[in-house]
Amino acid sequence: MSGASERPSPRTPAENAQLALLLDVAGTPKPGNVDRARDLSDLRFEHFLAGAVGSGEGLRRAEAGAPVGVAFERAVRGMRHQEGGNTQFGCLLLLVPLVRAAAAGNLSPDGVTEIVESTTVADAADFYRAFEHVDVAVDDPPEDLSDLDVRRGSDAVPTLRERGLTLSEVMAASEGDGNAAEWTDGFAGTFETAEAIRADDGPAPDRIARAFVDRLADEGDTLVRTKHGPETAAEVRRRAAEARGDEGRVAELAEEFVAEGINPGTTADLVCAAAFVALERGLSV
Amino acid sequence: MSGASERPSPRTPAENAQLALLLDVAGTPKPGNVDRARDLSDLRFEHFLAGAVGSGEGLRRAEAGAPVGVAFERAVRGMRHQEGGNTQFGCLLLLVPLVRAAAAGNLSPDGVTEIVESTTVADAADFYRAFEHVDVAVDDPPEDLSDLDVRRGSDAVPTLRERGLTLSEVMAASEGDGNAAEWTDGFAGTFETAEAIRADDGPAPDRIARAFVDRLADEGDTLVRTKHGPETAAEVRRRAAEARGDEGRVAELAEEFVAEGINPGTTADLVCAAAFVALERGLSV
Repeated sequence: MSGASERPSPRTPAENAQLALLLDVAGTPKPGNVDRARDLSDLRFEHFLAGAVGSGEGLRRAEAGAPVGVAFERAVRGMRHQEGGNTQFGCLLLLVPLVRAAAAGNLSPDGVTEIVESTTVADAADFYRAFEHVDVAVDDPPEDLSDLDVRRGSDAVPTLRERGLTLSEVMAASEGDGNAAEWTDGFAGTFETAEAIRADDGPAPDRIARAFVDRLADEGDTLVRTKHGPETAAEVRRRAAEARGDEGRVAELAEEFVAEGINPGTTADLVCAAAFVALERGLSV
Repeated sequence: MSGASERPSPRTPAENAQLALLLDVAGTPKPGNVDRARDLSDLRFEHFLAGAVGSGEGLRRAEAGAPVGVAFERAVRGMRHQEGGNTQFGCLLLLVPLVRAAAAGNLSPDGVTEIVESTTVADAADFYRAFEHVDVAVDDPPEDLSDLDVRRGSDAVPTLRERGLTLSEVMAASEGDGNAAEWTDGFAGTFETAEAIRADDGPAPDRIARAFVDRLADEGDTLVRTKHGPETAAEVRRRAAEARGDEGRVAELAEEFVAEGINPGTTADLVCAAAFVALERGLSV
């Protein structure tokens, strides 16, 4: 249980990714999200458990070297085999290239950037197809990209092909989305948060919950901004900063965010990806 | 969420088995066991999550038709990739033949009995090898079977071979163990409990927690008897019977059992196996 043990993980990358999905929902309190102690009205803890189980096949394909798009679409399709709706779409978008990089023996900003830059138009098409399995809250795209609104699903594929857009180019065009920013920036926030988790003490789910509040306080959440606007997003960030380090206050914030319908989901995605990196780097459970 | 939907499961048998491991630990309160709301001192919730992840490979081998012993030993070895010790050995002993039966298209008392009766001396040897991965609390064997004490691990294999004992014969000789009783009795308790879970209402983890208390009240727990003797086991059963149906009283019982070191683990094993059968038969999550 030491903070930054260098013991290699006993698990495969796909297993660590599945475990990261589970640890992420086990950490509590994670204000505004489903966690070990909190369900939302139609989205419950067990939906995340089933989502993690269903994601396994796609994650194993990523480990085996399948194209990012193929592995991601398969993971999302399996994840969706539960009645809660979208549980882990964003986490999987981060995990799949990270699992590819780990399986290739280079889980680092350079290693994952190499995976990102190798994506093709076919990967972009599979990414769009994955949106047909779930309702994902996204911003309207810029005017000149309206044919490429992800909510169009596979209807956007001809336009993708016409313009020859790869998945990394689609991500680079997705301004203001926290997960897309990780893709274009060598997963800087993910690796930074992974090191924070490793440097912390105590059981893994507790570290993850603390990392969640820290990240929300430092960076805010793009899903909150998409759903509620920049003012609410700034306010949520301020409240997280005020509460962090005070267990009782964080627990209150968890009640408040749920009551207000505030769901910092992008922060949960990033912390899940960071948990994966931490597990690969020897965080023990 | 209806009680006994006949919708076929969207998951494979190995996925349903992994989900059953997770739902079993998510159900609360399960007096005396780790659950969504309770950790024991050195055995925490996340150890069960990691145990379920690590069990996946062995469960997939069972689904693909690997011998019961091979699949079980592999599942236990993967399960043990966490620092909590024995989390799900007993559940896996029940799940592996059930997954085999489900994959063969006959998940019924007859179907699983066919799998049990087809086990060989090699399966028995792998079963003994699996004990080397974990500390499992068991009773002393009868005098004439002391060479076959499971705690001897692979040291017992020559004796197994000499006597030509199959795994089903080893189970039949394990008097007084609840899991072995399921093996020799067509998994009667498992199938009965699965139907109780399906006939109940509400979220799957809640149904599982209620089934746990009912089973403990009706049948007692053989792990409690092994560790604490028949009088304590009878007392535990009586207290479960008194508490059942009263949520507050069951929650108190959870605190009391933990304080007293009472861990009805065999009941948790059976309820986990029953959750698998219920999922295969259409219980939705």
